[in-house]
Amino acid sequence: MGNGRAVTLRDVAARAGVSVQTVSNALNAPQRLQADTLATVTAAIRELGYQPNRSARSLRTSSARLIGYCVARRADGVANPMMDQFLHALTAAAEDEGRHVLLFTAPAGAEAMTPYADLIAQRAVDAFVLSDTVPHDPRHRWLTEHGARFASFGRVWHEQEQPGPWVDVDGAAGCAEAVRHLHSLGHKRIAFLGLPPDGGAVQDRQHGWQAACGQLGLPTEGLLVHCADDTVRHGRDAALRLLDGAEPPTALVAASDVVAFGALHCGRPLAVVGFDDTPLAALVPPGLSSVRQPVAEVARTLINLLDDDHERGVLLRPELVVRASSRTTVRES
Amino acid sequence: MGNGRAVTLRDVAARAGVSVQTVSNALNAPQRLQADTLATVTAAIRELGYQPNRSARSLRTSSARLIGYCVARRADGVANPMMDQFLHALTAAAEDEGRHVLLFTAPAGAEAMTPYADLIAQRAVDAFVLSDTVPHDPRHRWLTEHGARFASFGRVWHEQEQPGPWVDVDGAAGCAEAVRHLHSLGHKRIAFLGLPPDGGAVQDRQHGWQAACGQLGLPTEGLLVHCADDTVRHGRDAALRLLDGAEPPTALVAASDVVAFGALHCGRPLAVVGFDDTPLAALVPPGLSSVRQPVAEVARTLINLLDDDHERGVLLRPELVVRASSRTTVRES
Repeated sequence: MGNGRAVTLRDVAARAGVSVQTVSNALNAPQRLQADTLATVTAAIRELGYQPNRSARSLRTSSARLIGYCVARRADGVANPMMDQFLHALTAAAEDEGRHVLLFTAPAGAEAMTPYADLIAQRAVDAFVLSDTVPHDPRHRWLTEHGARFASFGRVWHEQEQPGPWVDVDGAAGCAEAVRHLHSLGHKRIAFLGLPPDGGAVQDRQHGWQAACGQLGLPTEGLLVHCADDTVRHGRDAALRLLDGAEPPTALVAASDVVAFGALHCGRPLAVVGFDDTPLAALVPPGLSSVRQPVAEVARTLINLLDDDHERGVLLRPELVVRASSRTTVRES
Repeated sequence: MGNGRAVTLRDVAARAGVSVQTVSNALNAPQRLQADTLATVTAAIRELGYQPNRSARSLRTSSARLIGYCVARRADGVANPMMDQFLHALTAAAEDEGRHVLLFTAPAGAEAMTPYADLIAQRAVDAFVLSDTVPHDPRHRWLTEHGARFASFGRVWHEQEQPGPWVDVDGAAGCAEAVRHLHSLGHKRIAFLGLPPDGGAVQDRQHGWQAACGQLGLPTEGLLVHCADDTVRHGRDAALRLLDGAEPPTALVAASDVVAFGALHCGRPLAVVGFDDTPLAALVPPGLSSVRQPVAEVARTLINLLDDDHERGVLLRPELVVRASSRTTVRES
């Protein structure tokens, strides 16, 4: 593994001083080329050690140079708004190392590891990238026990140890920054709009809110509410419950953009910061401030971790993107 | 190509009466198994002709069983809301035929075909699936000329011919159905909220609106407006221009959910139907009626087209999903 970037058609074309198309023709339709051009390209191929056939190279090096990635199936109507960005970033980062991404699906439940076992047995991939991790995710331990190389976007929470290398975004730091931002605008009662505690990422975000409020001497009592589900309606209802309380908040940090969006459209003045900076945040007026995950850096780190036998975990810092939703006037209470 | 489903670990496990894990162990860690279990699994592997090594099989059959798919890079903040669904559906449909999807990226401009040429030259894939087609898309002709197998989600509009097999969703039929739906609720002035004419899919949707209005004897004069860009703000502004006209519409069909969303939140009563049934449509209250593309059927058709030398084009019918946005009361004019 990790023996540098594979020589590409582009490299051969540059060396031979011809177009990529000409190199492609030399390999696939040599009859189309003049004899001297063909000789030049063939010499460049030899000099650079270019291997036109991935399958042949794969057998020799025991490495398909393919990274397996499981496309998660979402519940109907629920999209992963970062999927688009993440897959592009992962594919581009893999290509920089002469690799490609192979997609597969996995069933839920007891058979969830079957496709992983199949791909390993077929030697179709030489590593996996995991995302959509859940607490007690069985994949990390299984892959470790089977000696498969992988890197995980997201941690396995509540495990005694975290099997295998991982990269994650510091949700606690992101929410703490959101609290400090709102405090700097004069807010003194800043609520947290959570989701059902999953013992993982959501909990981590809540801890960040709690810690930052503590450091700034702000109250948290009566300012924590959990939405029953990650929907706009649940977000709005939860925000209204907070605002109907004895000492309502003037601002709110949410565990997701979706519930943040509900809070923002609850019909009452409330400064709101979401989490994930989904397309929704920029798209829907007046614009939702949100904590952005550094997707491209996550992808690059994942690919690097596949070739690194030392690094175990990388925690990246998210970035607060400020829009109109957190710039409401503070009412003096 | 197309010589049936590959034998999987699962098949071997079923034949041997053992778990998939045991088959995987037999291939990768035989020392872990009892001698009789190993013998049973080995016999099943032989009987079924299971090929554990994709690379070896690939060399023999000249087919990597991989389908190349280019992940498009979006402008910042613009996500393809169907990407998630489409990639899962495509991967699942490919797996049903014993194939996998290989992702790659492509630069814009003159070098756009380079990764396609590289993958062909390396024999890394044996076919391509295209999406995000644009008018005069150069890929279809290039792949045809290079003898590469592919299937396209979306047509190349304004070409004299459509090179290669394709599947598309009948946007004209979808918008016509939206018009008939609004008409059945009593609307008599139904506008179309378009996007800059691209000579392709957007134009097709507009034609559907125009044709249906014609058939129902409804006016179209002064009821067509184009948004300068596919944003919520542009949608709202365009809807307000229509509503401030001499004879304003009571209902509107939009070329996208995003501009439909702007029209829905323009502050005036207006029945609205969007296009694409993105997650936004179901997520944001009160719920946006929208024309849904049959993504799973698109994916299955694409995979089938790769093995079909006769079928050239398949036009699928979209489905109107009715939500609260098109159920406003009609004001008598």
